Amino acid sequence: MRQGLLVILSGPSGVGKGVLRRKLMKDKELNLAFSVSMTTRPKRPKEQNGKDYFFVTKEEFGRKLKEDGFIEWVEYCDNYYGTPKSFVEENIKAGRNVLLEIDVDGAERVMKKYRGMYTLAIFLMPPSMEELERRIRLRGSESEDEINNRIQKSKEEMEKRSQYDVSLTNYTVNKTALRFKQCVQNRIRYCEQVEKGEKTDPTYIIKRP
Amino acid sequence: MRQGLLVILSGPSGVGKGVLRRKLMKDKELNLAFSVSMTTRPKRPKEQNGKDYFFVTKEEFGRKLKEDGFIEWVEYCDNYYGTPKSFVEENIKAGRNVLLEIDVDGAERVMKKYRGMYTLAIFLMPPSMEELERRIRLRGSESEDEINNRIQKSKEEMEKRSQYDVSLTNYTVNKTALRFKQCVQNRIRYCEQVEKGEKTDPTYIIKRP
Repeated sequence: MRQGLLVILSGPSGVGKGVLRRKLMKDKELNLAFSVSMTTRPKRPKEQNGKDYFFVTKEEFGRKLKEDGFIEWVEYCDNYYGTPKSFVEENIKAGRNVLLEIDVDGAERVMKKYRGMYTLAIFLMPPSMEELERRIRLRGSESEDEINNRIQKSKEEMEKRSQYDVSLTNYTVNKTALRFKQCVQNRIRYCEQVEKGEKTDPTYIIKRP
Repeated sequence: MRQGLLVILSGPSGVGKGVLRRKLMKDKELNLAFSVSMTTRPKRPKEQNGKDYFFVTKEEFGRKLKEDGFIEWVEYCDNYYGTPKSFVEENIKAGRNVLLEIDVDGAERVMKKYRGMYTLAIFLMPPSMEELERRIRLRGSESEDEINNRIQKSKEEMEKRSQYDVSLTNYTVNKTALRFKQCVQNRIRYCEQVEKGEKTDPTYIIKRP
């Protein structure tokens, strides 16, 4: 059975990763499993355990850390956030494509570990920095200085897009979802061709008895 | 006039970077200028502005960010931390060696920007993970789970030591300071030889009229 892809969706904060992800998850043809992160921070009222995050204690997080159970993890404000390895690897093995929605720093760490044709890294770009600024402001949760610093961070993150397989400009979620789907399907086709020996991929090593 | 070195001192939390740095700064022969970071977090009672950190508002930080004034910066717990570029570059130009004491993530970002023979990156290692654990516990400020997670993080950071020019095991601060000094002096000698044309360095390009 063909293994699934690890599909990394990243891009600056405010670019619309969450909206796109929810749209993509509804498309059954993409056969996507969403990688749910684990965190030690308290659950917020609207959040669901197992859907938004797996909410665990620091002790549980620590146990998983010790057994090398995360693809990547980070400490932020005395809380821990991680991407559980087992979910990703089991689903990929079972032929499902795993969608990882992750910030640019986290994506960089994942890409270092998961290379090759079964990983597809997609960078989501705002139509313009003005548009990104508008979207960040729409959230309305931050001070003017914080917004400016966030925009500056986004600019630096934008410079990392060349590390990705594809950059998509997020004009509208519908168009972006369509192009996203094409990218996934193209990559699946490519993997199939390599597996059949119709193409060669430098990272693909046939494992046969 | 020969330019100074950028000397990066990094390693896991609790390894003794601060103690070593204070020791090194007292050695006048090393001609070190300590790079003071800028932060938006509130000053703690014992801290001195301009010595421990430059304490600034988010607005001031943002202005500096906009003018590309940091070598590297990071947001943590709604506060910003950065390494001002002007201090480092002015001191290096004036022939002083700039000492940057920085965590492993930050060091990684700096090393991407400052390559070549004028940058010396030194990774400080604990004598053993048991010893590191003991040192982290001595601080006594964290819960058991947090200590375990910190140790796990340190293990992952230890794997990055191959990115550095030198790894030093911190048995005692006096011995480490001595070896640190030798590393700096060796590198200075090497730079001088390259500048005189006695050696060639792939990253050194002679700029002459």
